[in-house]
Amino acid sequence: MSILIKNGRIITAADDYTADIFIEGETIRTIGKNLTVTADETIDASGKLVMPGGIDPHVHLDMPFMGTYSSDNYETGTRAALFGGTTTVIDFILQTQGKSLQSALNEWKGRSDNNAVGDYSFHMAVTDFNEETKKEIRHFIENEGITSFKTFMAYKGALMIDDRQMVGLMQEVKKHGGLINVHATNGDMIDFLIAKHKSEGKLSPLYHYLSQPEVTEAEASSRFADMADYTGCPGYIVHLTCEGALNAVRFATRRNQHVFVETCIQYLILDASLYENDFEGAKWVMSPPLREKKDQETLWAGLNQGLVNVVATDHCPFMWEQKLMGKDDFSKIPNGHPAIENRMELLFSEGVSKGKITLNKYVEVASTNAAKIFGMFPKKGTIAIGSDADIVILDPNETHTLSAKTHHMNVDYSAYEGRELTGKVKTVLLRGKVVIDNNECKVEKGYGQFVKRNKVTGKI
Amino acid sequence: MSILIKNGRIITAADDYTADIFIEGETIRTIGKNLTVTADETIDASGKLVMPGGIDPHVHLDMPFMGTYSSDNYETGTRAALFGGTTTVIDFILQTQGKSLQSALNEWKGRSDNNAVGDYSFHMAVTDFNEETKKEIRHFIENEGITSFKTFMAYKGALMIDDRQMVGLMQEVKKHGGLINVHATNGDMIDFLIAKHKSEGKLSPLYHYLSQPEVTEAEASSRFADMADYTGCPGYIVHLTCEGALNAVRFATRRNQHVFVETCIQYLILDASLYENDFEGAKWVMSPPLREKKDQETLWAGLNQGLVNVVATDHCPFMWEQKLMGKDDFSKIPNGHPAIENRMELLFSEGVSKGKITLNKYVEVASTNAAKIFGMFPKKGTIAIGSDADIVILDPNETHTLSAKTHHMNVDYSAYEGRELTGKVKTVLLRGKVVIDNNECKVEKGYGQFVKRNKVTGKI
Amino acid sequence: MSILIKNGRIITAADDYTADIFIEGETIRTIGKNLTVTADETIDASGKLVMPGGIDPHVHLDMPFMGTYSSDNYETGTRAALFGGTTTVIDFILQTQGKSLQSALNEWKGRSDNNAVGDYSFHMAVTDFNEETKKEIRHFIENEGITSFKTFMAYKGALMIDDRQMVGLMQEVKKHGGLINVHATNGDMIDFLIAKHKSEGKLSPLYHYLSQPEVTEAEASSRFADMADYTGCPGYIVHLTCEGALNAVRFATRRNQHVFVETCIQYLILDASLYENDFEGAKWVMSPPLREKKDQETLWAGLNQGLVNVVATDHCPFMWEQKLMGKDDFSKIPNGHPAIENRMELLFSEGVSKGKITLNKYVEVASTNAAKIFGMFPKKGTIAIGSDADIVILDPNETHTLSAKTHHMNVDYSAYEGRELTGKVKTVLLRGKVVIDNNECKVEKGYGQFVKRNKVTGKI
Amino acid sequence: MSILIKNGRIITAADDYTADIFIEGETIRTIGKNLTVTADETIDASGKLVMPGGIDPHVHLDMPFMGTYSSDNYETGTRAALFGGTTTVIDFILQTQGKSLQSALNEWKGRSDNNAVGDYSFHMAVTDFNEETKKEIRHFIENEGITSFKTFMAYKGALMIDDRQMVGLMQEVKKHGGLINVHATNGDMIDFLIAKHKSEGKLSPLYHYLSQPEVTEAEASSRFADMADYTGCPGYIVHLTCEGALNAVRFATRRNQHVFVETCIQYLILDASLYENDFEGAKWVMSPPLREKKDQETLWAGLNQGLVNVVATDHCPFMWEQKLMGKDDFSKIPNGHPAIENRMELLFSEGVSKGKITLNKYVEVASTNAAKIFGMFPKKGTIAIGSDADIVILDPNETHTLSAKTHHMNVDYSAYEGRELTGKVKTVLLRGKVVIDNNECKVEKGYGQFVKRNKVTGKI
Repeated sequence: MSILIKNGRIITAADDYTADIFIEGETIRTIGKNLTVTADETIDASGKLVMPGGIDPHVHLDMPFMGTYSSDNYETGTRAALFGGTTTVIDFILQTQGKSLQSALNEWKGRSDNNAVGDYSFHMAVTDFNEETKKEIRHFIENEGITSFKTFMAYKGALMIDDRQMVGLMQEVKKHGGLINVHATNGDMIDFLIAKHKSEGKLSPLYHYLSQPEVTEAEASSRFADMADYTGCPGYIVHLTCEGALNAVRFATRRNQHVFVETCIQYLILDASLYENDFEGAKWVMSPPLREKKDQETLWAGLNQGLVNVVATDHCPFMWEQKLMGKDDFSKIPNGHPAIENRMELLFSEGVSKGKITLNKYVEVASTNAAKIFGMFPKKGTIAIGSDADIVILDPNETHTLSAKTHHMNVDYSAYEGRELTGKVKTVLLRGKVVIDNNECKVEKGYGQFVKRNKVTGKI
Repeated sequence: MSILIKNGRIITAADDYTADIFIEGETIRTIGKNLTVTADETIDASGKLVMPGGIDPHVHLDMPFMGTYSSDNYETGTRAALFGGTTTVIDFILQTQGKSLQSALNEWKGRSDNNAVGDYSFHMAVTDFNEETKKEIRHFIENEGITSFKTFMAYKGALMIDDRQMVGLMQEVKKHGGLINVHATNGDMIDFLIAKHKSEGKLSPLYHYLSQPEVTEAEASSRFADMADYTGCPGYIVHLTCEGALNAVRFATRRNQHVFVETCIQYLILDASLYENDFEGAKWVMSPPLREKKDQETLWAGLNQGLVNVVATDHCPFMWEQKLMGKDDFSKIPNGHPAIENRMELLFSEGVSKGKITLNKYVEVASTNAAKIFGMFPKKGTIAIGSDADIVILDPNETHTLSAKTHHMNVDYSAYEGRELTGKVKTVLLRGKVVIDNNECKVEKGYGQFVKRNKVTGKI
Repeated sequence: MSILIKNGRIITAADDYTADIFIEGETIRTIGKNLTVTADETIDASGKLVMPGGIDPHVHLDMPFMGTYSSDNYETGTRAALFGGTTTVIDFILQTQGKSLQSALNEWKGRSDNNAVGDYSFHMAVTDFNEETKKEIRHFIENEGITSFKTFMAYKGALMIDDRQMVGLMQEVKKHGGLINVHATNGDMIDFLIAKHKSEGKLSPLYHYLSQPEVTEAEASSRFADMADYTGCPGYIVHLTCEGALNAVRFATRRNQHVFVETCIQYLILDASLYENDFEGAKWVMSPPLREKKDQETLWAGLNQGLVNVVATDHCPFMWEQKLMGKDDFSKIPNGHPAIENRMELLFSEGVSKGKITLNKYVEVASTNAAKIFGMFPKKGTIAIGSDADIVILDPNETHTLSAKTHHMNVDYSAYEGRELTGKVKTVLLRGKVVIDNNECKVEKGYGQFVKRNKVTGKI
Repeated sequence: MSILIKNGRIITAADDYTADIFIEGETIRTIGKNLTVTADETIDASGKLVMPGGIDPHVHLDMPFMGTYSSDNYETGTRAALFGGTTTVIDFILQTQGKSLQSALNEWKGRSDNNAVGDYSFHMAVTDFNEETKKEIRHFIENEGITSFKTFMAYKGALMIDDRQMVGLMQEVKKHGGLINVHATNGDMIDFLIAKHKSEGKLSPLYHYLSQPEVTEAEASSRFADMADYTGCPGYIVHLTCEGALNAVRFATRRNQHVFVETCIQYLILDASLYENDFEGAKWVMSPPLREKKDQETLWAGLNQGLVNVVATDHCPFMWEQKLMGKDDFSKIPNGHPAIENRMELLFSEGVSKGKITLNKYVEVASTNAAKIFGMFPKKGTIAIGSDADIVILDPNETHTLSAKTHHMNVDYSAYEGRELTGKVKTVLLRGKVVIDNNECKVEKGYGQFVKRNKVTGKI
């Protein structure tokens, strides 16, 4: 099977040129001007952008959380991702405290195997680091191809580890060539504020926001950077939202440290004013919450400064019915919002079309950096000879409107209902196969494969 | 004329893959696995790295300075550059105070036209910004293809402009799509210290170093960042050497600012202990001077943090006879050292071979970023379809020793005499022609062309 | 002659107690509970605060400036100061560029001798530092009792010195036991903005404000701190107004540096919204201009942090007729505003009465610190045995209203017209003599004496 | 009973003058030149410094800790303090987790009542903040005169509270007019390092030091400042030792925050090289440990910057026999060292005599600030009319040598054995009574009184 993509404007994290791409089997074989090859299928990409498939390294599919499950499973979630140009996602396995990492991996495999439409990998969330789990780290890195370990500085009693566990884990992970991702918010402070607000009868979604002020994230980000610096372990802060937290990372540059930073698309374009209107705000109840306009500016600047490396989603959708579990108590609203399908188009429209970032930067933060940081490069994350032919063909001028009526995520509202975008994903290839075209998915569940990842060094 | 480079490991700022490159005329036409094309010439690059030709955006050729001329002219300088894998350089035109920018351009063209072996462009150093020169800015950007304007915060009475001129120039340059490069050291403080040391009879090269302490560079870098932030003009600090100065840039990130930073190869690998031995230190008398070990660490970290964007040379060679002009007075030693030929190999050996930076980072800071920042991309700075076939083929394992006896720069000492390197440039192509092979230069003066540059935005 | 002040609540920079003060001649002889001495005069201070006479270390009396003279001379200015509880002022002698410091001193003595009602000293403003003036520094410190040297980083061509002169002066001043005061704003940037605004026909007082943005002060404060750190010379920033500038000082604490900071009463309580209304804003045209609310918060915090050490006035009054010189061009409005009489009461009312600072802090920043920093302690600045009996008796509860109709400064408008204050100066003593009582001045011009000052160390 | 101290040079936090002090009963009645009063006793202080009695706000007497008791009880400890010029100490009551604050107070009263020779007060260490202890806060502040609450961010499972408890406590303490003291080190990280070192067989005192690196203190200080800023509660960091921690406080000044800082005398003058020699280092095993020379410089600078407010001791002596408990395991060495008697003389000799701080600063940090911060002013901490006659008469020129042979603390080694000092305490008065004279203590146990303290505001 071979495909020829003709005359597209090819954009990678570094390059920008017009050429043809010849794909044979799952990978890219030749790139050139006016290729004179014979292909089974030819796609005319004139006037379009041809870019590496997006990588969303922060999603939660079919995840048990707060007494329910996120509403997208591996099938619906990865399919929706493909519709939006994201060909690979990284999901989070959650260790149950008291149990092994392996048992959690098995559980997650049970949900993902033969169900994914798009490609996927796993981060391993370590919620209980002890002498037993310590022994599993090396195995995960060397044999399972899972080289990133997620930690929570919040959700005490459920997911949180303390700083003693954190530095212990860091030393072990560093030794074997892995990396630590962190949810960096001060769980104790947040727990205090939640309890305080509840005791005062302040129960609407607005108080979800007010229970996680900027300082809770700035503090934890700073503390995490301190521990990463002390141990020398590569670190990656997930879903960083605000000036205070990014300043902690900026400050750490002074001691020659480099902490990777991920933000999510929603923090770049939405703000906390959405919480003001009664329970409607539940649509955007997530942790950390949306922030202020000044934080959006900080994050866009951070992308251009090279200090914010990745734009993900923290996709974790819940049906409105599920959100209603917290109707009378914000702390019972399942945390998360749907974005897996919208990320690439939103970032293009708000970032590239509005001149906030360049096309190269777009590809870098939407795809390439995630591949490099997490050890999937050059298989994923670029358009180059020998790489997987994961390709998005996007019309930069076509406008369209986001809506729950038309989206493919398994959730009955859109966090971006009615938003008009410039730039639309037209065709998507995954490993040499057209998976999306003409607003249709061309493959079935099971097409998606697990991506084993390599050791990492913290340098990209 | 066509060339096929086979089986090389191709490295760009983003990619790393093995393939063949087919070059037709001056540009790259096709890249692929096992290309089945017929070429006039075939180069076997098996086991070698194939990378974009280096770009050194900071050289001084045939420059009148301190009563003499730098000893490499356009012919010897650009040829030596090619031997070292640098296919394009950017030289500095110096306006004479009281005269027009155009007259300086004419003078420089007289020296470069028909003399260069490698490709080159110009920065325009504005040493006298007034109502007349203000009118020339737009012309330089729009018609001459010269979009970067160098300023000096030191050398009062000769090259220095004051802050009033600086902000005026910044506003004008920003308006038309250019960028300001700056030599950021506090000239007044340095003048004071030079005079003080001389009045105390402290005349050896060591006092050159002691007349330019870290604070003089940190202060000026901070001040430049303030002015760039206020005017919104893209800024680029040349030859940044030290922690204090990089911290000024890091600090400025807090207000969402991004200042480009260039360091030079010598600041990454040499230190001020070289000034301790009497007049021998004159070999490394340059401004700013070499710094401390801790500054080297800062600069390597800066590269990995993405805050140091370019590694250049500030190549400005003088024969030992010329250096002796300052035998009895450090302030009369012509400032500068030879490195145009050594940069790419030194950075490879010290950076890549020793694991301090990745291969992608190497290409990024030695070539691609300079092309992007200064408006030469994608013509220069990458290996991609349609780009100039400026290519370096480097053997990553071959060791060799630097020496004045074997180098091609027109200077009778080496700043790196006897240094053993891992990694050697074997073959170099410029615009589709093999210009260096088997330690021989295959082209004559006049082959090098002037590169007109595009407008820039300060975003890459 | 002796005076007994009975039952007052005595406040110093450290203490707070109720006792009697017995004054004999010019100094304080005894302090105690229920003193049983016989005095020529007894003052009942029950229910009142008894505090050291205020010291305003930043005033401009009878000063030639911008083609006119400040409207208060030594008589009217120091008398008004006494009415407001300020018993000692420090004025600025301005060297004429090209002339000696001594000639300027002679000129100022001609204006002050036999004219002052209150006590005074001089700072020496060095506007032309060269080999000749260098020789005068030691004499001023050792023989004239003038140990502080003012420098301007603005007003190029008139008062400004460059950084070379600055570091040279700093080294000389440090050697002999003096201190540098600085007007820290970037004169070049300001000159650029003034010219720009004028060329655009933007001529109202608002553009005075917009020509001196925060960055111009932040930059120069940072640069001054760098130079003071490098030379080790004690430094004192006059009329610091804003967050950016104070942050420069805060930042410098990290390298174990301590720069003294003075703000002025107007920057604590007025803001730039006063410039919005046409020419009325000319009343507050001063340099630096008034700033924002957030800067007021910063300055109050700075006082409590111990990083803002002194509250002065920069008193430099001009009649409305004089202000009108700039009716059609903000750059011709004489810079300055009247406050010498209001400082102590404004700071009391806004600071102490509103709970922003403690009583001890009030005395510290309104009197004691200035005495210590500038070498007048313990003669001035406290209530202690042997100190000059310079005493303010203030009713903390009495309210009154400021107005040009009732003030004693020689200026026909009040910058604080109609402002209601809590806390009123009732009686003032200077060197053991009641100089103000019942809203009357009891002494004539010539009573005020020149205060010779001691060497300083930069530690208090 | 009355005492007249004649002709001393009286130093307070603000003043410096020569006069007589007349004391009647327990307080100071009159201060003046050549007082003509009749006193029961006259002390000639000619040539001596007369200063407020020292206040050491950080001591541990008779404290149960690590399976033993600190070796000074209230009698021996406060008597030794008096010998060294410290007339008031503040000890720490430790709540037992699970029990009430009141029960701990009762226990401590049992130890202190009728035993103290010098005056004392208590901080209340809250080790278990919950709904029950929350109710006790107000009572302690309003009725018990205990307005400061100590918290531990280290010693998990024994003394440590988590951040949730911390912010809850802060809100309660702020509401009622108290202050939080904090032991700010990251207990989790330290526990990790202790366990790691022990598992590696690294058991000497050196590993006590290496288990508490600078980052553990810098991190916790930063986190504490964040929580204090968020809650608005006055905060006071005890025994701050290092640059990283002070920089956290300096950094917090940028958001207009002011955190009080205490260092201890040992951190100003001793360094970690003392840990290098085998078990001898146990003498200085304390938490935090001694640091580096650069940290000493930071702390002296901090005193002069006004950012380090108090010099205490953390006096917690153990007999050598007790220290030997940790002979084979550094983690079993009782933490603490003896200094209660030496603080005032050490600080005088190293600080004042060597010109590092002024006399006023000496009194401020050794006495006055502690009185103000903790609500004992003006009863304690100054020499002023109506204040307690707590007075130290010190000969600034007398030299002497510290030794366990001559000290009065109940501990069989001196941490400063053989150190020669300039400046000796000659006579000490406590509440109008000579308690130390001629190296003899003139009062018995029981003379010392508990000092009830007032509410505080965080402003001094």
